[in-house]
Amino acid sequence: MTITLHVCVTCRRGLPDADDSPRAGAALHQALVRAGMPDGVRIVAAECLSACDNGCNIALSAPGRWSYVYGHMDPEAHVADILAGAAAYAAAPDGIVPWRERPVIFRKQSLARIPPLEPAK
Amino acid sequence: MTITLHVCVTCRRGLPDADDSPRAGAALHQALVRAGMPDGVRIVAAECLSACDNGCNIALSAPGRWSYVYGHMDPEAHVADILAGAAAYAAAPDGIVPWRERPVIFRKQSLARIPPLEPAK
Repeated sequence: MTITLHVCVTCRRGLPDADDSPRAGAALHQALVRAGMPDGVRIVAAECLSACDNGCNIALSAPGRWSYVYGHMDPEAHVADILAGAAAYAAAPDGIVPWRERPVIFRKQSLARIPPLEPAK
Repeated sequence: MTITLHVCVTCRRGLPDADDSPRAGAALHQALVRAGMPDGVRIVAAECLSACDNGCNIALSAPGRWSYVYGHMDPEAHVADILAGAAAYAAAPDGIVPWRERPVIFRKQSLARIPPLEPAK
Protein backbone atom coordinates (compact mmCIF):
# COMPACT_ATOMS: atom_id res chain seq x y z
CA MET A 1 0.00 0.00 0.00
CA THR A 2 1.17 3.53 -0.73
CA ILE A 3 0.70 5.88 2.18
CA THR A 4 0.64 9.67 2.02
CA LEU A 5 2.95 12.04 3.85
CA HIS A 6 1.21 15.41 3.95
CA VAL A 7 3.46 18.41 4.56
CA CYS A 8 2.04 21.83 5.32
CA VAL A 9 3.89 24.19 2.98
CA THR A 10 2.22 27.36 4.21
CA CYS A 11 3.50 27.07 7.78
CA ARG A 12 5.41 30.04 9.13
CA ARG A 13 6.43 28.14 12.23
CA GLY A 14 5.28 31.04 14.37
CA LEU A 15 7.74 33.44 12.78
CA PRO A 16 7.05 36.59 10.77
CA ASP A 17 7.57 36.09 7.05
CA ALA A 18 10.84 37.39 5.71
CA ASP A 19 10.31 38.57 2.16
CA ASP A 20 13.30 36.79 0.74
CA SER A 21 13.10 33.41 2.40
CA PRO A 22 10.74 30.51 1.84
CA ARG A 23 8.27 29.63 4.54
CA ALA A 24 9.41 27.03 7.03
CA GLY A 25 6.82 24.57 5.79
CA ALA A 26 7.97 24.95 2.20
CA ALA A 27 11.56 24.48 3.32
CA LEU A 28 10.59 21.27 5.11
CA HIS A 29 8.74 20.02 2.04
CA GLN A 30 11.73 20.78 -0.18
CA ALA A 31 14.15 19.07 2.18
CA LEU A 32 11.99 15.95 2.27
CA VAL A 33 11.63 15.85 -1.51
CA ARG A 34 15.39 16.25 -1.89
CA ALA A 35 16.02 13.43 0.55
CA GLY A 36 13.75 11.13 -1.45
CA MET A 37 10.74 9.11 -0.35
CA PRO A 38 11.06 5.59 1.08
CA ASP A 39 9.25 2.73 -0.62
CA GLY A 40 5.50 2.99 -0.29
CA VAL A 41 5.47 6.68 0.64
CA ARG A 42 4.26 9.54 -1.50
CA ILE A 43 4.66 13.14 -0.42
CA VAL A 44 1.87 15.68 -0.96
CA ALA A 45 2.01 19.39 -0.17
CA ALA A 46 -0.90 20.64 1.91
CA GLU A 47 -2.02 24.20 2.35
CA CYS A 48 -2.50 24.52 6.09
CA LEU A 49 -3.13 21.64 8.43
CA SER A 50 -4.79 24.05 10.90
CA ALA A 51 -2.21 23.47 13.60
CA CYS A 52 -0.40 26.76 13.08
CA ASP A 53 0.65 27.20 16.71
CA ASN A 54 2.60 23.97 16.53
CA GLY A 55 4.31 24.11 13.11
CA CYS A 56 5.93 22.80 11.13
CA ASN A 57 3.28 20.15 10.72
CA ILE A 58 3.01 16.86 8.86
CA ALA A 59 0.38 14.14 8.65
CA LEU A 60 0.36 10.49 7.63
CA SER A 61 -2.71 8.81 6.16
CA ALA A 62 -3.77 5.84 4.08
CA PRO A 63 -7.04 4.06 3.32
CA GLY A 64 -8.32 2.00 6.24
CA ARG A 65 -5.69 3.29 8.67
CA TRP A 66 -5.50 5.72 11.53
CA SER A 67 -4.22 9.13 10.40
CA TYR A 68 -1.59 10.90 12.48
CA VAL A 69 -0.62 14.56 12.78
CA TYR A 70 2.75 15.62 14.17
CA GLY A 71 3.92 19.11 15.10
CA HIS A 72 7.07 21.05 15.82
CA MET A 73 8.87 19.44 12.91
CA ASP A 74 12.23 21.06 12.21
CA PRO A 75 13.20 21.39 8.52
CA GLU A 76 16.86 21.04 9.40
CA ALA A 77 16.88 18.52 12.21
CA HIS A 78 14.01 16.12 11.53
CA VAL A 79 14.07 15.05 7.88
CA ALA A 80 15.66 11.66 8.50
CA ASP A 81 13.35 10.88 11.41
CA ILE A 82 10.25 11.91 9.47
CA LEU A 83 11.22 9.62 6.61
CA ALA A 84 11.97 6.75 8.99
CA GLY A 85 8.61 7.22 10.69
CA ALA A 86 6.76 7.41 7.38
CA ALA A 87 8.52 4.25 6.18
CA ALA A 88 7.55 2.43 9.37
CA TYR A 89 3.92 3.52 8.95
CA ALA A 90 3.96 2.31 5.34
CA ALA A 91 5.49 -1.01 6.33
CA ALA A 92 3.09 -1.77 9.20
CA PRO A 93 0.17 -3.78 7.82
CA ASP A 94 -2.38 -1.74 9.76
CA GLY A 95 -0.35 1.46 10.02
CA ILE A 96 0.02 1.03 13.78
CA VAL A 97 3.75 1.09 14.45
CA PRO A 98 4.88 -0.37 17.80
CA TRP A 99 5.59 2.47 20.18
CA ARG A 100 9.30 1.78 20.59
CA GLU A 101 9.80 1.63 16.84
CA ARG A 102 8.45 5.13 16.30
CA PRO A 103 10.95 7.99 16.03
CA VAL A 104 11.14 9.98 19.24
CA ILE A 105 9.72 13.04 17.48
CA PHE A 106 6.60 11.01 16.64
CA ARG A 107 6.28 9.78 20.21
CA LYS A 108 6.73 13.21 21.75
CA GLN A 109 5.20 15.53 19.18
CA SER A 110 1.89 13.93 18.31
CA LEU A 111 -0.83 16.51 17.84
CA ALA A 112 -3.69 14.13 17.11
CA ARG A 113 -4.77 10.95 15.41
CA ILE A 114 -8.05 10.15 13.68
CA PRO A 115 -9.59 6.68 13.37
CA PRO A 116 -9.85 5.07 9.95
CA LEU A 117 -12.98 5.71 7.94
CA GLU A 118 -13.44 1.98 7.62
CA PRO A 119 -12.15 -0.75 9.94
CA ALA A 120 -8.46 -1.41 9.32
CA LYS A 121 -7.87 -4.38 7.03
CA MET B 1 -23.61 11.34 3.06
CA THR B 2 -23.26 10.21 6.66
CA ILE B 3 -20.31 11.76 8.43
CA THR B 4 -18.66 10.47 11.57
CA LEU B 5 -18.26 12.34 14.84
CA HIS B 6 -15.47 10.64 16.76
CA VAL B 7 -15.41 11.29 20.50
CA CYS B 8 -12.45 10.28 22.63
CA VAL B 9 -13.96 8.45 25.58
CA THR B 10 -10.68 7.80 27.40
CA CYS B 11 -9.83 11.47 27.87
CA ARG B 12 -9.14 12.59 31.41
CA ARG B 13 -9.06 16.24 30.40
CA GLY B 14 -5.79 16.66 32.23
CA LEU B 15 -7.31 15.72 35.56
CA PRO B 16 -6.51 12.80 37.82
CA ASP B 17 -9.07 10.04 37.65
CA ALA B 18 -11.57 9.98 40.48
CA ASP B 19 -12.59 6.39 41.16
CA ASP B 20 -16.27 7.08 41.24
CA SER B 21 -16.74 9.39 38.30
CA PRO B 22 -16.65 8.70 34.57
CA ARG B 23 -13.83 10.12 32.54
CA ALA B 24 -14.48 13.50 31.00
CA GLY B 25 -14.37 12.03 27.50
CA ALA B 26 -16.94 9.40 28.42
CA ALA B 27 -19.14 12.08 29.95
CA LEU B 28 -18.91 14.11 26.74
CA HIS B 29 -19.81 11.06 24.67
CA GLN B 30 -22.80 10.29 26.89
CA ALA B 31 -24.04 13.88 26.77
CA LEU B 32 -23.83 13.90 22.98
CA VAL B 33 -25.65 10.58 22.66
CA ARG B 34 -28.35 11.83 25.01
CA ALA B 35 -28.78 14.99 22.97
CA GLY B 36 -29.25 12.96 19.79
CA MET B 37 -27.40 13.14 16.50
CA PRO B 38 -28.45 15.53 13.72
CA ASP B 39 -29.33 14.13 10.29
CA GLY B 40 -26.35 12.66 8.53
CA VAL B 41 -24.20 12.35 11.63
CA ARG B 42 -23.20 9.14 13.38
CA ILE B 43 -21.28 9.18 16.65
CA VAL B 44 -18.45 6.73 17.29
CA ALA B 45 -16.48 6.36 20.50
CA ALA B 46 -12.70 6.45 20.02
CA GLU B 47 -10.07 5.27 22.45
CA CYS B 48 -7.57 8.10 22.50
CA LEU B 49 -7.18 10.66 19.76
CA SER B 50 -3.58 11.28 20.92
CA ALA B 51 -4.23 14.88 21.83
CA CYS B 52 -4.33 14.29 25.56
CA ASP B 53 -2.93 17.69 26.55
CA ASN B 54 -5.89 19.36 24.87
CA GLY B 55 -8.88 17.22 25.85
CA CYS B 56 -11.69 16.63 25.61
CA ASN B 57 -11.19 15.89 21.93
CA ILE B 58 -13.47 15.17 19.01
CA ALA B 59 -12.93 14.62 15.29
CA LEU B 60 -15.09 14.83 12.19
CA SER B 61 -14.43 12.72 9.11
CA ALA B 62 -16.11 11.35 6.01
CA PRO B 63 -14.97 9.78 2.75
CA GLY B 64 -13.44 12.27 0.34
CA ARG B 65 -13.41 15.10 2.87
CA TRP B 66 -10.92 16.90 5.06
CA SER B 67 -10.93 15.52 8.61
CA TYR B 68 -10.91 17.92 11.55
CA VAL B 69 -9.80 17.53 15.15
CA TYR B 70 -10.99 19.90 17.88
CA GLY B 71 -9.76 20.19 21.44
CA HIS B 72 -10.76 21.63 24.80
CA MET B 73 -14.34 20.45 24.36
CA ASP B 74 -16.38 20.89 27.52
CA PRO B 75 -18.91 18.12 28.30
CA GLU B 76 -21.22 20.60 29.97
CA ALA B 77 -20.87 23.73 27.87
CA HIS B 78 -20.25 22.58 24.30
CA VAL B 79 -22.72 19.83 23.38
CA ALA B 80 -25.05 22.07 21.37
CA ASP B 81 -22.18 23.72 19.52
CA ILE B 82 -20.54 20.38 18.71
CA LEU B 83 -23.79 19.08 17.26
CA ALA B 84 -24.34 22.28 15.25
CA GLY B 85 -20.81 22.07 13.88
CA ALA B 86 -21.18 18.39 13.00
CA ALA B 87 -24.49 19.10 11.27
CA ALA B 88 -22.90 21.89 9.24
CA TYR B 89 -20.04 19.59 8.23
CA ALA B 90 -22.54 16.93 7.20
CA ALA B 91 -24.59 19.42 5.19
CA ALA B 92 -21.68 21.00 3.31
CA PRO B 93 -21.23 19.10 0.04
CA ASP B 94 -17.44 18.99 0.40
CA GLY B 95 -17.32 19.20 4.20
CA ILE B 96 -15.78 22.67 4.09
CA VAL B 97 -18.06 24.88 6.14
CA PRO B 98 -17.73 28.63 5.56
CA TRP B 99 -15.67 30.13 8.36
CA ARG B 100 -18.41 32.33 9.79
CA GLU B 101 -20.86 29.43 9.87
CA ARG B 102 -18.63 27.34 12.10
CA PRO B 103 -19.27 27.39 15.84
CA VAL B 104 -16.80 29.60 17.65
CA ILE B 105 -15.37 26.59 19.46
CA PHE B 106 -14.49 25.07 16.07
CA ARG B 107 -12.89 28.30 14.89
CA LYS B 108 -10.84 28.80 18.03
CA GLN B 109 -10.09 25.25 19.15
CA SER B 110 -8.91 23.50 16.01
CA LEU B 111 -6.07 21.14 16.75
CA ALA B 112 -5.47 19.93 13.20
CA ARG B 113 -7.04 18.96 9.92
CA ILE B 114 -5.97 16.27 7.47
CA PRO B 115 -6.59 16.35 3.71
CA PRO B 116 -8.95 13.82 2.16
CA LEU B 117 -7.48 10.54 1.01
CA GLU B 118 -8.97 11.17 -2.39
CA PRO B 119 -9.81 14.51 -3.96
CA ALA B 120 -13.04 15.90 -2.54
CA LYS B 121 -16.01 15.18 -4.74
